Parts: sequence; structure tokens; C-alpha cells
Amino acid sequence: MKKAFLLTLFILINYTVNAQKFLNAKDSDPKILKWMQGYPPTKEKTISASDGSFFRFPALRYSVCHMREFLPTTEVKSASSDRYQFTTKIDPAIDEIEFIPLDSNEKISWKTSLDKNYTDGIIILHKGVIVYERYFGELTKDGVHAAMSVSKTFTGTLGAILVTDGILDQEAKAVQYIPELENSAFGDATIRQILDMTTTLKYSEDYSDPNAEIWSFSAAGNPLPKPKSYNGPNNYYEYLQTVQKNGVHGDEFGYKTINTDALGWIISRVTNKSIPHLLSEKIWKPLGTHFDGYFQIDGAGIAFAGGGFSANLRDMAMFGEMIRNKGYFNNTQIIPSKTVENIMKGGNQEAFKKSPYKTLTNWSYRDMWWITHNEHNAFAARGVHGQTIYIDPKAEMVLVRFASHPEAKNAKIDPTSLPAYHAVAKYLLGK
Amino acid sequence: MKKAFLLTLFILINYTVNAQKFLNAKDSDPKILKWMQGYPPTKEKTISASDGSFFRFPALRYSVCHMREFLPTTEVKSASSDRYQFTTKIDPAIDEIEFIPLDSNEKISWKTSLDKNYTDGIIILHKGVIVYERYFGELTKDGVHAAMSVSKTFTGTLGAILVTDGILDQEAKAVQYIPELENSAFGDATIRQILDMTTTLKYSEDYSDPNAEIWSFSAAGNPLPKPKSYNGPNNYYEYLQTVQKNGVHGDEFGYKTINTDALGWIISRVTNKSIPHLLSEKIWKPLGTHFDGYFQIDGAGIAFAGGGFSANLRDMAMFGEMIRNKGYFNNTQIIPSKTVENIMKGGNQEAFKKSPYKTLTNWSYRDMWWITHNEHNAFAARGVHGQTIYIDPKAEMVLVRFASHPEAKNAKIDPTSLPAYHAVAKYLLGK
Repeated sequence: MKKAFLLTLFILINYTVNAQKFLNAKDSDPKILKWMQGYPPTKEKTISASDGSFFRFPALRYSVCHMREFLPTTEVKSASSDRYQFTTKIDPAIDEIEFIPLDSNEKISWKTSLDKNYTDGIIILHKGVIVYERYFGELTKDGVHAAMSVSKTFTGTLGAILVTDGILDQEAKAVQYIPELENSAFGDATIRQILDMTTTLKYSEDYSDPNAEIWSFSAAGNPLPKPKSYNGPNNYYEYLQTVQKNGVHGDEFGYKTINTDALGWIISRVTNKSIPHLLSEKIWKPLGTHFDGYFQIDGAGIAFAGGGFSANLRDMAMFGEMIRNKGYFNNTQIIPSKTVENIMKGGNQEAFKKSPYKTLTNWSYRDMWWITHNEHNAFAARGVHGQTIYIDPKAEMVLVRFASHPEAKNAKIDPTSLPAYHAVAKYLLGK
Repeated sequence: MKKAFLLTLFILINYTVNAQKFLNAKDSDPKILKWMQGYPPTKEKTISASDGSFFRFPALRYSVCHMREFLPTTEVKSASSDRYQFTTKIDPAIDEIEFIPLDSNEKISWKTSLDKNYTDGIIILHKGVIVYERYFGELTKDGVHAAMSVSKTFTGTLGAILVTDGILDQEAKAVQYIPELENSAFGDATIRQILDMTTTLKYSEDYSDPNAEIWSFSAAGNPLPKPKSYNGPNNYYEYLQTVQKNGVHGDEFGYKTINTDALGWIISRVTNKSIPHLLSEKIWKPLGTHFDGYFQIDGAGIAFAGGGFSANLRDMAMFGEMIRNKGYFNNTQIIPSKTVENIMKGGNQEAFKKSPYKTLTNWSYRDMWWITHNEHNAFAARGVHGQTIYIDPKAEMVLVRFASHPEAKNAKIDPTSLPAYHAVAKYLLGK
């Protein structure tokens, strides 16, 4: 008991110290910290993939805009013609919109929230017109940024299209498409359960636990040479075959990245195309995007479908606006309207309630989209460190944010984000 | 004596066996060999950077179009607007043009030469119009290909521009710009000597010699984690500081990649821009290129200026045509005409004669371009495994070829290339 108390104390103190030690957004600006500046950069200012330091704050604030400089990648080709041109009509009043953060009683302004969330780039479309657009730190208008788990939403949407098109049967079991998954947890999971992450997997994504399965998954997917002593799976697909069940599929939402990688495998098997290739062909090129995106890949060239996408902010906004318009954008029905309508209906709210996401009241998860079921029927793609595509159908608003918050979990970031987005939506609705 | 004889015999037999064992162009087509096909590819068909196998023939034929999938890279941004559109007027007669290879007495056709040289992509411009364009194997019209030492020509041209602009003094010693080079061979080499590779360096690029310095250079620049026992230089710039002199600079042409990396360092120091960034800004964007190129980089993010560029075939042709037009292209004077005129005058032919390039009679080397001094005053960028940009001012011809010949040395490739280019040039001159 005393031991448990001391441990709790230790964690609390440690947490407080950690919380204090994070530089704020301005002081952690990569340009201020001079990461990778100079020819050559000094040893202290060199960020490297080989020791994993590139993904630690504050170096992370640089790396998120330069993933290809640390890892092997494969491109998601942008449009080579018919590139979409946004109309811009900036509304300066947005900066002054006020809202009450979830963890506070005091109003703050939209403008203030940007630094609180270590925003690298943010764009807001209202009825398809750019009304707000800002870039900070390392991100530039023509640059790209890691989308983290927003990547899942692209893979999920591709899967949902294949269901609409009848190429994937959502009630079929994964083993029907990938026999190699037979002895894994995924074998008897349905495509629908994988799409909505209601599989029940013996798999922890607790980054603070050195024994969590996330580390074995990362090791398998690491394209760097494996240590001689390593005898685990050598790529993402080999890893997925080792995952075991932890109960019955279908009852409970369990947010686990490997569902997306299993889905990615199924998609590639039935289409004979990689996720980056299919995303480019089905979505990125038809949108009229301007900049190639890319995925990080493992040692077998397999894209990290659950988190490896990097893309340009405006290009992401094109995707969001296409979804808001039920698949129609750039004079083309890019994806079936039925696919988007299904996503917007949302997933199983009862299953979601059983998950640990207690602050996301009444939310659900569908086709790797987060559905708020709020008064505006907003829904979102969400990634760690603050990445989001937030679509508010009622306000006819699409918002994309790239960020590099010191802490990964959105629970740290939502309090100054979700009410901010809703406040802007209400403002735009009144215009 | 007997020992020497046996060794010679061994080498001859070994060479013959090796020569026979290379699959021909059609049989080594990456699509036929199914490299990296399937989800996942089989172990036998997986190409990996971690064991170095990605750069061995025939895997090389796949890798040259996918360097970013094996290595960290940084982009050379293409134009985002004012993208140049070529006019195309294909001349089918070119395929039938005949020539006598340098190592033979029998005529062969242009068409036949393409497979002999394991051509991946080739384009010919006549007066700026595309008259010939073919893609083979892994290369596509919208893809990129490793340029190998053709990369040097881009770095050299950037250096030459800075000389024209008075930012670099060609008679100044390298140490004046990079004090860290003081105790290296480069310290007292002039910018001109580095640009023309008349430095004298204790540095062997003989890939067949395991003790050649090229391996230390590669080890320093390898972005993968270094073995624990490694205590050598950690990046390209650290390596350059260790290079020692092997005589007097200025008298002899010595083709050594590290000259280009030293030049790249000098350029970055005086401009405070990386080679990929400067190349994009000064050349790739103004040309109106359509596809981002990229450079492979070392563990400190430094681009491999001497060989790490990958680019699109048509984009390369834009560069060649710009040079043929003395820097003018896409309605813009992109680089100073004086820079190109200086290159075309050529370098020191006496210095070149002292080099081992005995088959390149009367050639010279200037600003990292190869000058033929032939009857058409042709000049070229050249890279191992058959890469070239070949400019024939008299015939108003620009030719770009990407290839993946099993052997690195152009001495193996020139016999069926140089006379072929000249035959096409003479044909175009007569039109």
C-alpha cells in the first residue's frame, strides 16, 4: 500500500515536472531552436532517425514536416493537371472568437488556442472558401506534415468505398481475403468490425509501457536493419499474423492502429495496389491536389496504413471538402455519395461507450472516422499530437489542423480544440 | 610470374563468367522478375536497403526508380505554376538509324542499341521538340530515376553560376570558404580546380578494391545507424576533412566524386542553402518542371551532391534544352549565358589526357560537364550504369537517357552509346 502510494506520488511529481519542462509553442519553434540549420548542423542540433530522437519533443516539431528525411517513403502522387484552385476570403474576425476550454472556466480566444495546441498549420473552409489559413514553425504553404492517425481515415475511406462498390463484403471475415490471417485475431473478424475497430485484440498501444505490443509492431515495421539477435516478424503483415484475440469481436470499440494495417492489407490484396497508389488514383489525383504526399514504409515496402501519411495542408482541405460534399469535388463525383452517407450515420455508440474515451460523450467510430453526434453532426479524422480534419456539415465548415503538441494524446489537446472548432462553426453558421 | 599468370587467368575466367551471367535487358525487366510485387512480396522478391542488395544487378533495375523507398531523401521541388509543356513530333525513322559501335565492325540500329544499354528511358529533343521518347522496365513517364553522377553536373553548374555571379572566386582556395577543410587535401585547392576535378587526392573509387577510400566515404554518408565499433566520420562533411593530397593540384584531371561534395559544401556555406533547395530555386522551378526530384541524404541531412539526385526524364530534358539555349528556357533567362559559354569552351585537355580515360580522345572536363570537343562540340553529363544528358549544339539536339546497365563503368556502355548519339545528331542535322 505504501509502495503503491509512493509510486502514485512519483508519477504525479514526474508528470508535473514533465508538464513544466515543455517549452511553449513560440520557444519550441524549430526555427528558433535552429534544428538542422547550418552546413553542417552542429551535433546538438542534428536530428537523427537512427537513435529514435527525431520523434521526441521538441525535435518532433521539426521532424513532422520532414519525415522523408528520416525514413524510406513512397509517394502519393498529386494531380498532374486539373489542379484545384481555392477561392480565399480571409475573415479576420475568426481570431477573436472566444470559447471556454473543456478543462477551464475562463474564456480564451481562437487566436490564443493556436499556440496552446502547438499548431503548425490550420485552414478553415466555409462553403468551400478559405476563410482562415495560418502556418507556424516549420510548416510552409508548399510543405507537408505528418498526418499521424489521420492516415487511418484515408485507409478507412478506401475500405468503405470498396464495400460500397461490392468489392469487399462487410460481413465477410478477414480470412476470406487473407488466408494468412487465419490463426490471428483478425481471422474471424468481419470487414465491418475491422473498419469500425470493434475487434477485440490482445494489443496495447500504451507508449509508456515498455512491454506494450505497440513496440513489437514498431520493431517489425522498422525499415532499419534489425539487430542480429532479432527473430520477430520482419514487416507489418508478418506482425499482423501474430496478433491474438482478447475476447469476442463486435461488442466494444477498441482503438488500435493494427486494425487499419489489417484493413490496408485486405485492400491491397483485393485491388492488387498499395495504399499509397490506390489513394493517389482514387482520391489524391481526382481532387486536383498540388503536392505529392507520401507514406513511410517498412522493410518490405509496405506502407504504414495506420499512421504513415504526410501531406500538404490545402490538399488535406480538398479531401475534407470533398467529403463534406458527399464525394463531389473539382467537378467530379470522386467517391460514391453512399460511402460518405454511411460514414456520417456513424457507428455503434454503445460499443464506443465501453471504450476508455470517456470525454468523447456519445461519439462513435465508423470507417475510421470519429463521429461526434453533436448538434451539428460534426465528424473528424484525428491523429496524435493534434492532427485533425474536422467536418461540420451544418455550418458547412471544413477545418484541417496540423500540430506538434508535446504530448501525443488528444485528451491533452481536445480541451482547447473541440470547443474552439464548435465556436467557429457556430460563428460561421450565423453568417 | 606463374602466380601473376594464374591471377590473370582467374580474372579473365571470372570476367567471362560474370559477363555471361548478366540477364539481358528484356529478361531482367523488373516487371518480368516481379521485384516487390504482391502484398507482401515474397522474401526472394523483396529488395532491401539494409543489406545493400538493392544496388546489385538485376535488383538495381528496380531500385533506380525507387531510391526514396530505400533511403532517406529530401525533395527538389518542381514548379507549382508556369509548368513547361513540350511540343511532341515523334520521328519513327530514328529507330532505324544505323551506326558502328566503338568495339565492333558491324552496324547496328539505334533501336537495337537501347536494349544493349539496358535503357530505362530515353528522350531526344530536336530544336526543343520531342522527336523520340521511350520508357522501358520500371520507369514511367511520371516517374523518377537515379541520375547517379549526372548529379555532379547540377552541383557543378550551380557552382559555375556562383562564379559568374562573383559570389565564388574561382582562384580562391577552398579553405577561404570552409576553414574546416584547412588540413585536408581540399584546403589549398582552388574553386576552379575543384570544379574541373584537377585536384590530386589520395582517394580511390575502385569499387572492386575493398580498401578503396570510396568505402570509407560511403560509410560516413550512410544514414543507417553505424555499428557500435564504428569511430570514423559521421557524415559527408566530416569525411571530406580527412581526405589527403596525393601530389600537386592543377595538372591532372582526376575524376573523384568527393570533389563534387566539397563543392556542394562550399556552395551551401556561401548561400546558406542546401544543394536540393538551391537547385529547386535557381533551376528546377524556373524550368517549369512537373515532378519533384529528390536527393538521398546522410545522417546529418546533407545531400549527396556527387551522386544522389533522382529526377523525371522530361524534367531532365528541360534542363538540357535550357543549357543548349545558353540558359534561356520557358521564357526566362534562367542561368547566365556566360556560365554556359564557359562550360562549352571546355576544360584543360592536357590535364584530361593524363587521366585514365583513354577512349575519350581529346575530351575535357569543365564545371562537372564532360566536353567531347568533337566536330559538333557536343558535351554531356554522365553517370554510372548509363545515365546521360547529351547536348549537341550543332545538331540542335538534346538527349537524356536513364539506364540500369549491369556494369557501372561507362567504358562498358559508351561503345554502343556515343556513336549512336552522334549518328542521330548527324541525321537531325540533315533534316
